[in-house]
Amino acid sequence: IGSNSVEPDSQTEWTDVQKKIIPWKNSTPGLDPEMVFQDRAAKLGKSNSRLIVVASLIDKPTNLGGLCRTSEIFGASALVVGSLHYVQDKQFQHLSVSAEQWLPLVEVKPPQLVDYLQQKKTEGYTIIGVEQTAKSFDLTEYCFPEKSLLLLGNEHEGIPANLIHHLDVCVEIPQQGIIRSLNVHVSGALLIWEYTRQQVIKQKQQK
Amino acid sequence: IGSNSVEPDSQTEWTDVQKKIIPWKNSTPGLDPEMVFQDRAAKLGKSNSRLIVVASLIDKPTNLGGLCRTSEIFGASALVVGSLHYVQDKQFQHLSVSAEQWLPLVEVKPPQLVDYLQQKKTEGYTIIGVEQTAKSFDLTEYCFPEKSLLLLGNEHEGIPANLIHHLDVCVEIPQQGIIRSLNVHVSGALLIWEYTRQQVIKQKQQK
Repeated sequence: IGSNSVEPDSQTEWTDVQKKIIPWKNSTPGLDPEMVFQDRAAKLGKSNSRLIVVASLIDKPTNLGGLCRTSEIFGASALVVGSLHYVQDKQFQHLSVSAEQWLPLVEVKPPQLVDYLQQKKTEGYTIIGVEQTAKSFDLTEYCFPEKSLLLLGNEHEGIPANLIHHLDVCVEIPQQGIIRSLNVHVSGALLIWEYTRQQVIKQKQQK
Repeated sequence: IGSNSVEPDSQTEWTDVQKKIIPWKNSTPGLDPEMVFQDRAAKLGKSNSRLIVVASLIDKPTNLGGLCRTSEIFGASALVVGSLHYVQDKQFQHLSVSAEQWLPLVEVKPPQLVDYLQQKKTEGYTIIGVEQTAKSFDLTEYCFPEKSLLLLGNEHEGIPANLIHHLDVCVEIPQQGIIRSLNVHVSGALLIWEYTRQQVIKQKQQK
């Protein structure tokens, strides 16, 4: 832990980073985030993940930067953010340790989320809200589909009611402390890990 | 997520917090951190965890504050820090969202760690280093004992060689990105979660 940490590279040209960011509605086929990822995965000799992390509802640059680092490390196929401007934020960059250069970032503003989620459903993704509701699955019992899209809630409001209707399922992390709610980066990291762990186990069983 | 978040309570008296902090060498029986926890667990009607999180090697108040919040939420029996002074740090408090009031904190300075780990071994704890080594277990394959002590590494140096000798086992998180190393709070959170997940599953199987 920590021994291989990569510090933000102040020499990075903003234009280089921008090339990796693809607004989803205007994406050309050659720049499809998943194709970018498959290309990267092929170069790394790694398995293709079909995990999309949607962080459009998150406000804090520190949480987004942290999620960018964690999503890249576990090979998510894309991180969706509410605005591309976050990537220029110093706090984002401090936490992301340059992961935004390797992980496809997609901009989907909160009002576009319903359309985006519908689009991903037609592509075969299961839309998974990370939220405590009366019908939520416990994370210890949920089995992630290969094509999983995680929708993370806002730091204060969680996932708004109008979006809950568009989810296929909600998953919650069982918590036993007096402080009730995990930080949203940590919540996201635990679901990304659990998805990864289940995929690793499946791949081993297939061998 | 986030909907139940607790903001730091600026009204909290420092003396109240201090009462919850027990230097391990001078602890009186009535203030044993584990007994404090058992009392709390009994009040909450929750199961007793036997997980100790040792963060004495961690330098950044943000990482320590975050670990305090996460450890409290998953019912760890104590968080061990290198100095009690961190709790007064504004960044620590911002990230811990007052979890230090509910989670027993123990001060073990880095030079005291060898003695502390030996002591915990005699109490039946398995000493688990979170570190990438040639002999590390993959987190997807490691089965946590009920009495587990997690030793987290420094943000830059990891776990120093002289301490590696005193570990029972090392566990590493499989990572596939180009950015190699997870943030230490996230690494700790994933192991705390994995311990918790395994305990939950064991408890269900016993019913």
